[in-house]
Amino acid sequence: MPTVSSKGARMPESPIRKLVPYAEIAYKNNKTVFHLNIGQPDIKSPQIAMDAVAHHHLDILAYTRSEGSEPYRTKIAAYYNRNNIPVNAQDIIVTTGGSEALLFAMGTIADQGDEIIIPEPFYANYNGFATASGVKIVPVISKIEDNFALPPISEFEKLITPKTKAILICNPGNPTGYLYSREEIETLVKIVNKHDLFLVADEVYREFTYDGEKHTSILEIEGMSQNGIIIDSVSKRYSMCGARIGCLVSQNNKVIQTALKFAQARLSPPTFAQIASEAALNTPQSYFDEVISEYKDRRDTLIKLLEEIPGVKVGHPKGAFYCIVELPVKDSDLFAQWLLEKFDVDGQTVMVAPAAGFYSSEGVGKNQIRIAYVLQKESLIKAVNILKAALKEYRD
Amino acid sequence: MPTVSSKGARMPESPIRKLVPYAEIAYKNNKTVFHLNIGQPDIKSPQIAMDAVAHHHLDILAYTRSEGSEPYRTKIAAYYNRNNIPVNAQDIIVTTGGSEALLFAMGTIADQGDEIIIPEPFYANYNGFATASGVKIVPVISKIEDNFALPPISEFEKLITPKTKAILICNPGNPTGYLYSREEIETLVKIVNKHDLFLVADEVYREFTYDGEKHTSILEIEGMSQNGIIIDSVSKRYSMCGARIGCLVSQNNKVIQTALKFAQARLSPPTFAQIASEAALNTPQSYFDEVISEYKDRRDTLIKLLEEIPGVKVGHPKGAFYCIVELPVKDSDLFAQWLLEKFDVDGQTVMVAPAAGFYSSEGVGKNQIRIAYVLQKESLIKAVNILKAALKEYRD
Repeated sequence: MPTVSSKGARMPESPIRKLVPYAEIAYKNNKTVFHLNIGQPDIKSPQIAMDAVAHHHLDILAYTRSEGSEPYRTKIAAYYNRNNIPVNAQDIIVTTGGSEALLFAMGTIADQGDEIIIPEPFYANYNGFATASGVKIVPVISKIEDNFALPPISEFEKLITPKTKAILICNPGNPTGYLYSREEIETLVKIVNKHDLFLVADEVYREFTYDGEKHTSILEIEGMSQNGIIIDSVSKRYSMCGARIGCLVSQNNKVIQTALKFAQARLSPPTFAQIASEAALNTPQSYFDEVISEYKDRRDTLIKLLEEIPGVKVGHPKGAFYCIVELPVKDSDLFAQWLLEKFDVDGQTVMVAPAAGFYSSEGVGKNQIRIAYVLQKESLIKAVNILKAALKEYRD
Repeated sequence: MPTVSSKGARMPESPIRKLVPYAEIAYKNNKTVFHLNIGQPDIKSPQIAMDAVAHHHLDILAYTRSEGSEPYRTKIAAYYNRNNIPVNAQDIIVTTGGSEALLFAMGTIADQGDEIIIPEPFYANYNGFATASGVKIVPVISKIEDNFALPPISEFEKLITPKTKAILICNPGNPTGYLYSREEIETLVKIVNKHDLFLVADEVYREFTYDGEKHTSILEIEGMSQNGIIIDSVSKRYSMCGARIGCLVSQNNKVIQTALKFAQARLSPPTFAQIASEAALNTPQSYFDEVISEYKDRRDTLIKLLEEIPGVKVGHPKGAFYCIVELPVKDSDLFAQWLLEKFDVDGQTVMVAPAAGFYSSEGVGKNQIRIAYVLQKESLIKAVNILKAALKEYRD
């Protein structure tokens, strides 16, 4: 039997997906499982987008241009302009989800063995794209004690080598919910310009900020026209994860031309999903106001209840819909499995994502979990009460 | 300004896409251009598939499972069983087009620097996926004189090294239209089993065979359960190129488990497109009968007319909807550009794909083009007459 590649074998398990078999055991035992582990929002997609697809008039479901349909890219540019991001249609390549935008970005800026510095904890799938691209992720630790703020510049500069090609951030952050301030973004711009690196910003949660805080895009800042790359996606913005539409944005034409070659190899992003995504750009502000108020309410409820549990420490998210929670356990992976296999309150239990998978440094974050507040408030309350009862009973 | 990666810069231009700027020049000069260069069929998608999407009842456009929705995979397995391919749902990973299936296959079976042997001419985008995956394509030349039949085993065996991981074929072939016989497939199965390699078969044109010839899938042959990987797609089968749905099929569980990790990193294939593709599996046989009869008619017309042109040699396609044509010119790339920029018959000209891009060996195929017969018969006739007039006038 021929052997599979070591690259394939090295592809990391997602901390969320690896729990699925245990979840299935929980289901088999007829337990109700509250999913605090996944990033699939329970929010309705904008009606305008769903209707646009229902009313399609296509005879032939044809390819679009590899860089995405022209009218859609023009409308995305207008959306960015409304958000103080001064780009044109030709600065945008439509991708199959933010995932593909990340893959194209890594292929475009880094060769085999090159390095990208990422503040950790970070979105676990960055590991997968890095492995697939032959890129080495160099983590710089951000801490729950600092609410996952940007680590000091000196920490980044210690890690920069001739192989460093970029700094990658997620803002607002998955899994931390941290929102970088304008000052922090300016600091990053200074570092990358000084060392001639790319700054890649995953801004897919741009709209989800709370407490009056405002998101700052890297392309709002002067001096980013050659070094800045935005990764974006409709998945969370419009609760359209299944569309698989995102984009890569850069004012650096060489970046766009190179990423375009990766785009051409895979021909075209999905056509129906571009119809939905183009229509979604007309989603009224009232939709976002409602959604953001809902998330804020959930966040406040969740954080308050979690902080009442003895021994629990919580990061205070200012954006997105995740938070990192430190638990009084040694290994949250074992705890998460135990919750599914061995524990219930009246037949109910919870699934949480162990946070170790969001760290690239070995052994860090082992007592942390990520919680996504994508459940209705009543379910969240029940879920946290179950977690509380579980922590009382659990012995490492 | 930071530099883009050499990997990105090495991504090849598609022989088809690179003509687009010239085509735009032709359009500016108000010429009508007959597109003989692209693989976008003009055939209607099955109504049943388009209706399924129009009648969707989704509130939330959510992720599906990374390996594709369970009901869809079950129905794909039934489709394969009807085609004598004995696989189950768990042998299938739904991908974002055949493109992604190829990318996953390369990542799964080959590490940086590993080699895959491919009979050339081959689908130009294989080069892109190989570059993105760090894989080296080793070509084995098949010849227009032999109608692009399988080269002798000895030619393959000469090229096998410790780094060889697989043989990759496209059957029926793009760009040759060649359909491997059952004997040829059995020969390939013997080679890969002897040398413990994977046999990867791109079978996306399975349905499109002519003259009563029958397609043989690699997974119909004994001894392929550990070494065989099928690449498939709905793009051409149902004229749904814009769906971006394909799949990777293998009875080797290790291959599936490894490919699944790549699938998990990008979360899920597109949801609307899975709805269309699942419905498309109920397309009545009459649809295929009509489409195949239409393609056969076009092929016969095209080949007959081409063979009447002095100095032109044509491969005889038995499947798919492409053929390779040898022209009495030195460099078909220059000829193709000249057609768009300098030539017309009553304001009409043709766009053809230079075949050199379908070869990996330097300098081979420079006097060949690929023609896709995805135009109505009347347009095909006009286009070939323009080509004939052009060849009379053209001087290298």
